[in-house]
Amino acid sequence: MQLIDGKAIAAQIKQEIADEVKQIIAAGGRAPHLAGLLVGHDGGSESYMSSKVKACEQCGFRSSLLRFDETVGQDELIEAIHRLNDDDSVDGFIVQLPLPRHIDEQAVIEAIDYRKDVDGFHPINVGRLSIGLPCFRSATPAGIVMLLERAGIETRGKHCVVLGRSNIVGKPIASLLMQKANPGNCTVTVCHSATPNIKEICRQADIIIAAIGRPEFVKADMVREGAVVIDVGTTRVDDPTRERGWRLCGDVDFEHVAPLCSHITPVPGGVGPMTIVSLMHNTLLAAKHEIYK
Amino acid sequence: MQLIDGKAIAAQIKQEIADEVKQIIAAGGRAPHLAGLLVGHDGGSESYMSSKVKACEQCGFRSSLLRFDETVGQDELIEAIHRLNDDDSVDGFIVQLPLPRHIDEQAVIEAIDYRKDVDGFHPINVGRLSIGLPCFRSATPAGIVMLLERAGIETRGKHCVVLGRSNIVGKPIASLLMQKANPGNCTVTVCHSATPNIKEICRQADIIIAAIGRPEFVKADMVREGAVVIDVGTTRVDDPTRERGWRLCGDVDFEHVAPLCSHITPVPGGVGPMTIVSLMHNTLLAAKHEIYK
Repeated sequence: MQLIDGKAIAAQIKQEIADEVKQIIAAGGRAPHLAGLLVGHDGGSESYMSSKVKACEQCGFRSSLLRFDETVGQDELIEAIHRLNDDDSVDGFIVQLPLPRHIDEQAVIEAIDYRKDVDGFHPINVGRLSIGLPCFRSATPAGIVMLLERAGIETRGKHCVVLGRSNIVGKPIASLLMQKANPGNCTVTVCHSATPNIKEICRQADIIIAAIGRPEFVKADMVREGAVVIDVGTTRVDDPTRERGWRLCGDVDFEHVAPLCSHITPVPGGVGPMTIVSLMHNTLLAAKHEIYK
Repeated sequence: MQLIDGKAIAAQIKQEIADEVKQIIAAGGRAPHLAGLLVGHDGGSESYMSSKVKACEQCGFRSSLLRFDETVGQDELIEAIHRLNDDDSVDGFIVQLPLPRHIDEQAVIEAIDYRKDVDGFHPINVGRLSIGLPCFRSATPAGIVMLLERAGIETRGKHCVVLGRSNIVGKPIASLLMQKANPGNCTVTVCHSATPNIKEICRQADIIIAAIGRPEFVKADMVREGAVVIDVGTTRVDDPTRERGWRLCGDVDFEHVAPLCSHITPVPGGVGPMTIVSLMHNTLLAAKHEIYK
């Protein structure tokens, strides 16, 4: 069994990005600039946003954080988005989700200029990803693809079973892995809450991507010997042995599944760090105008 | 075995659309207006386009056909598209594909205002379909979903195997059938040219959607008793017994597969007529501004 060290791979890619940024600046260019919009003071959102700001520093990016009170109106938020759309000093920006209930998330996402939508949530980027055209790929699926590539895992002709059909993980990773591309060319099965025989289907998988959001859902009897298991789950579960009282728990029963696998990602330290790196990668692509002119 | 009569279902839906158009006109509205752009004189394209014009007549729509010489420049074509985008008398329009090689099809598709893109090929419509938002669904997958619905086929919890990963059939039908919706809620597997064990996977399917473009590819030993088989194939094969010298051949070995099925679509007369009806349905939705304001 080989552990896929997402933390180490992420660190390496950040170093590569930082090196490229140095070259850009040495050639007279300016640092890529990522802006983030944060509404309210949710603990999880604060923590994700500060990780992104930190990653920007590591990559040599400029970052800006725009904070809004939890009571901000949708119109005010969308006006701020329009200003960022028009601001040539900003290469890409993200709105930290979830937003308070009184705000229509989809309207906010669609207000973002798709050419600056480095989270890849705008329908144009989602559509182009499905068609197989260059686009900003949403961060988690893009991170999984980079992870498979860097870990040297062959995907062509493999049966990949995706657990979960969310718009930010399940659907786009299924799209990416079925493309005529490398990584890609997988036979892809998408399972979800309405699938009656998940165990039986998982047992056929060469690659399992678990993104169902249920702690330790994937048990040893669902995984065949030699499978590759990518665990996207990050549920907080109570853990009185930790000072903070909780730990992150993946969708895979790691202890019992890992011995069966050829490769497996841990939680934490697997997909998580790659998600942030994908965002950095998209921001670099935006600064270089590689996807859209 | 029950034959799914796409021709009869299509005729019924066209009648329903025609009835609604009469009501719109009786209430002082105008007929929905579909425009089509046709480049060159390819036999297949001419034939598809004239079927669409005829369907417009049956539905009580106004139709306009804009013809261009095969040597038309891309800029000229895109200018014509911009005029249609701006023409309030046109509710929706389509560009008959394929286009001559000197024209970039994707650039042409993206020039269409997505609010008039009744073929559903613009990335915004593709993306919204994947996310599960209201959109113009591309015609063939939308037709398949209507067919399943009208034939009373339960999809929830069923395993649907899609053969083919084209942008106009395989990928969008996979997207539609995995949605949390009805029809939908299928476990979906997408197989293609890089899938090594198609037979084994097909034998697990409750529903097979064959869109691989290889005549009679699906044989009896690939289908389990009681499966639903939807045949999207329409390859022209030589047939000296026909006056015109060819016949349409599906992707399914109908003679041997049909006796095993609970339901099956014939070729011709299955999915084909539904594809045109979907286009009519989208045009009606466009005229009523039901998807986009």
